Amino acid sequence: MPEHMPEHQQGPQPIPKARLEAFSDGVFAIIVTLLVLELRLPPLPQNPTEAQIADALIKVLPPLYAWVVSFFVTIVLWVNHHRFFALLRHSTDGLMWINAFFLLSLSFIPFPAAVVGEHLDSPLAVALFGGAIALGALMFQAMRLYATLTRGMMVGRQELKKRKFWFGLIFGPVLYTSAAALAYTNVLIAQILYVLITIYFIMPWFARPGAKTAEIEA
Amino acid sequence: MPEHMPEHQQGPQPIPKARLEAFSDGVFAIIVTLLVLELRLPPLPQNPTEAQIADALIKVLPPLYAWVVSFFVTIVLWVNHHRFFALLRHSTDGLMWINAFFLLSLSFIPFPAAVVGEHLDSPLAVALFGGAIALGALMFQAMRLYATLTRGMMVGRQELKKRKFWFGLIFGPVLYTSAAALAYTNVLIAQILYVLITIYFIMPWFARPGAKTAEIEA
Amino acid sequence: MPEHMPEHQQGPQPIPKARLEAFSDGVFAIIVTLLVLELRLPPLPQNPTEAQIADALIKVLPPLYAWVVSFFVTIVLWVNHHRFFALLRHSTDGLMWINAFFLLSLSFIPFPAAVVGEHLDSPLAVALFGGAIALGALMFQAMRLYATLTRGMMVGRQELKKRKFWFGLIFGPVLYTSAAALAYTNVLIAQILYVLITIYFIMPWFARPGAKTAEIEA
Amino acid sequence: MPEHMPEHQQGPQPIPKARLEAFSDGVFAIIVTLLVLELRLPPLPQNPTEAQIADALIKVLPPLYAWVVSFFVTIVLWVNHHRFFALLRHSTDGLMWINAFFLLSLSFIPFPAAVVGEHLDSPLAVALFGGAIALGALMFQAMRLYATLTRGMMVGRQELKKRKFWFGLIFGPVLYTSAAALAYTNVLIAQILYVLITIYFIMPWFARPGAKTAEIEA
Repeated sequence: MPEHMPEHQQGPQPIPKARLEAFSDGVFAIIVTLLVLELRLPPLPQNPTEAQIADALIKVLPPLYAWVVSFFVTIVLWVNHHRFFALLRHSTDGLMWINAFFLLSLSFIPFPAAVVGEHLDSPLAVALFGGAIALGALMFQAMRLYATLTRGMMVGRQELKKRKFWFGLIFGPVLYTSAAALAYTNVLIAQILYVLITIYFIMPWFARPGAKTAEIEA
Repeated sequence: MPEHMPEHQQGPQPIPKARLEAFSDGVFAIIVTLLVLELRLPPLPQNPTEAQIADALIKVLPPLYAWVVSFFVTIVLWVNHHRFFALLRHSTDGLMWINAFFLLSLSFIPFPAAVVGEHLDSPLAVALFGGAIALGALMFQAMRLYATLTRGMMVGRQELKKRKFWFGLIFGPVLYTSAAALAYTNVLIAQILYVLITIYFIMPWFARPGAKTAEIEA
Repeated sequence: MPEHMPEHQQGPQPIPKARLEAFSDGVFAIIVTLLVLELRLPPLPQNPTEAQIADALIKVLPPLYAWVVSFFVTIVLWVNHHRFFALLRHSTDGLMWINAFFLLSLSFIPFPAAVVGEHLDSPLAVALFGGAIALGALMFQAMRLYATLTRGMMVGRQELKKRKFWFGLIFGPVLYTSAAALAYTNVLIAQILYVLITIYFIMPWFARPGAKTAEIEA
Repeated sequence: MPEHMPEHQQGPQPIPKARLEAFSDGVFAIIVTLLVLELRLPPLPQNPTEAQIADALIKVLPPLYAWVVSFFVTIVLWVNHHRFFALLRHSTDGLMWINAFFLLSLSFIPFPAAVVGEHLDSPLAVALFGGAIALGALMFQAMRLYATLTRGMMVGRQELKKRKFWFGLIFGPVLYTSAAALAYTNVLIAQILYVLITIYFIMPWFARPGAKTAEIEA
């Protein structure tokens, strides 16, 4: 592939920032929409009664739980991804590849979501779900760390020595990992914690009603 | 995630309006295209006769009905979403999250569509389908209400006190909910009403043949 | 929905042409990519031999045929859709809705493609496949007729009285419908004709090597 | 379709380069996201034990391998596709169609990925997987060759006589084909080679930390 012909390309440019973001946005949009494919009625007899259909719908509640949690985790990561990119001055090849690893971990989430939807009372399934979310958050923070460590890559002063910076990096992954570990003590607590942690990350946005985008945007 | 480091972000901007709309458009496009995956031939014997294949195709009519209704409901919501965004001056975090709830309810529709496609004569399945559409319409109106109540967010005078405004807000959700409730009286009436209500929302556009977009657009 | 509040919207604008095209492009891209999901190995015994896997792969040839034909039909329609939009001065609500019907017929194609992939020797399945393609072509031509009949909508003089115009409108749909009808005489002939007709629509582009887009484009 | 009415179209323009790239990007994004749908737990008894679920998860490792390899192969092709398009001055109909064949071969990859995920110890399945990747790489190089042979299509001097150019063209396809052929000697070696070759194509980017996109980009 092209890498072998430097004289033809005369210094290939990295994927532009805007295109990297548009591609990632496509992946985000597909993931949030695909998740619903995991919602399926369990097999029913030929001419089911209303009670049997109602029963079958109740059995869809576990995948429904996994779907809603995955949906909002993906949206939280999308919002953070956008804010991170808004502070980037440019992209590099390295950033593109860390972003690829982030998208890989993100597009993995529908699988543990399907597993936990089928086996909601299994500590292993519940821990796998939380672990996958933690991995997605970790990949995102790795990308943020990479950009912060690269001189001149981000807008604004990067205060690497501040405790808050490092705390912010590990906060999300540690929270989800801890909740996942708790699945081996009590499956229900882990399930509730996934919801609470995700709400916790959504809350701050409602607290800033004044913030708005510039009026000039099309 | 980033919310924990205000000094790094110096006032994170909400997702820009244009990007929020592009993301939503992606979800709309994926939903209308995914819906066809619910159309599947029922299992057939090894070497089926033409009559058996014809029979199997006839059994696809219920999911076909659910597919066409869901398709046009999604398109109606897409058009309304676009018109609503065209009147927005800016986006805020709150709007982004109400939009996320709207997309959640929208991306849920393929599931009840699949259920009603399998159990077209079940009042529960038919009511669930109508209820899901009503929920999508309700979430959209909640977003519209939020934007109207937020000072300076929308272009044009917002006449909150006018009866027509409130009537418009609840009109779609109430129509679909009523049709859904009728499924317990007569399943067929509810099915026909879903079609008629959707046609009713499509009709006005054909009545304005003169309206056109500006010629400058690319 | 918004149609009920004229005073709030002060003349809602139709979906802009560029956005209608971007949305349609999304649907085209999703369809060509989803089609591969119909390629599935038939069920195999627990530890299959190489010969059994080879046999299973050979049984994938019918869906492979349906996949390749659907893929190129969709690409042909995409190219024509783009060329048609390039000649549009503006969009209207009517155009948006005819485009919606076109997208509906287009997103239906994966279903008959799956049916013909499973039942390649069934005249009914083969005719259904050709009929679905003909329907997609017909919807596209209906949109073109609508735009041509609307005064001032298209760039260039529209010569409605010319026989060539009307011939071009029905040419594609009639070709595919005829091939579909032939499935009841000989299934293989219809299958070959679908390929030949599609190649026929692709050929002209290779004959114009000089045509190129303007260099200014990004 | 439109090709039959030259007087109406007065020289139809080829699909613009930017739109061709956006369409291809959509296909790339959908493929990398769809791949996860091949990850599925094997059927389990009614109330599985933790050990049974763990066993089932271990059986997901082969599709996981196929998923990760396909994911990065697609990303490598995406990056190369972008770099190639960045050097294009314009697009032509011919380029559009070679790009369509490239997208066809690309969107085929999920199928052999699913086959190899189910039959990881089958030389046939493993060779098919490598062959499909080689085909994707070959189609990409065919597009590059076409553009290079077309006078004035690419930015920069094209040194067709240089051995390095021809070597670069066949390098990727030959590597993957050779690895695929080795599957008949030893399945594991082929599987490891797919990973190593893909890493080999990713590596150079990490070696150019200085390269970055222009700061002006939005």
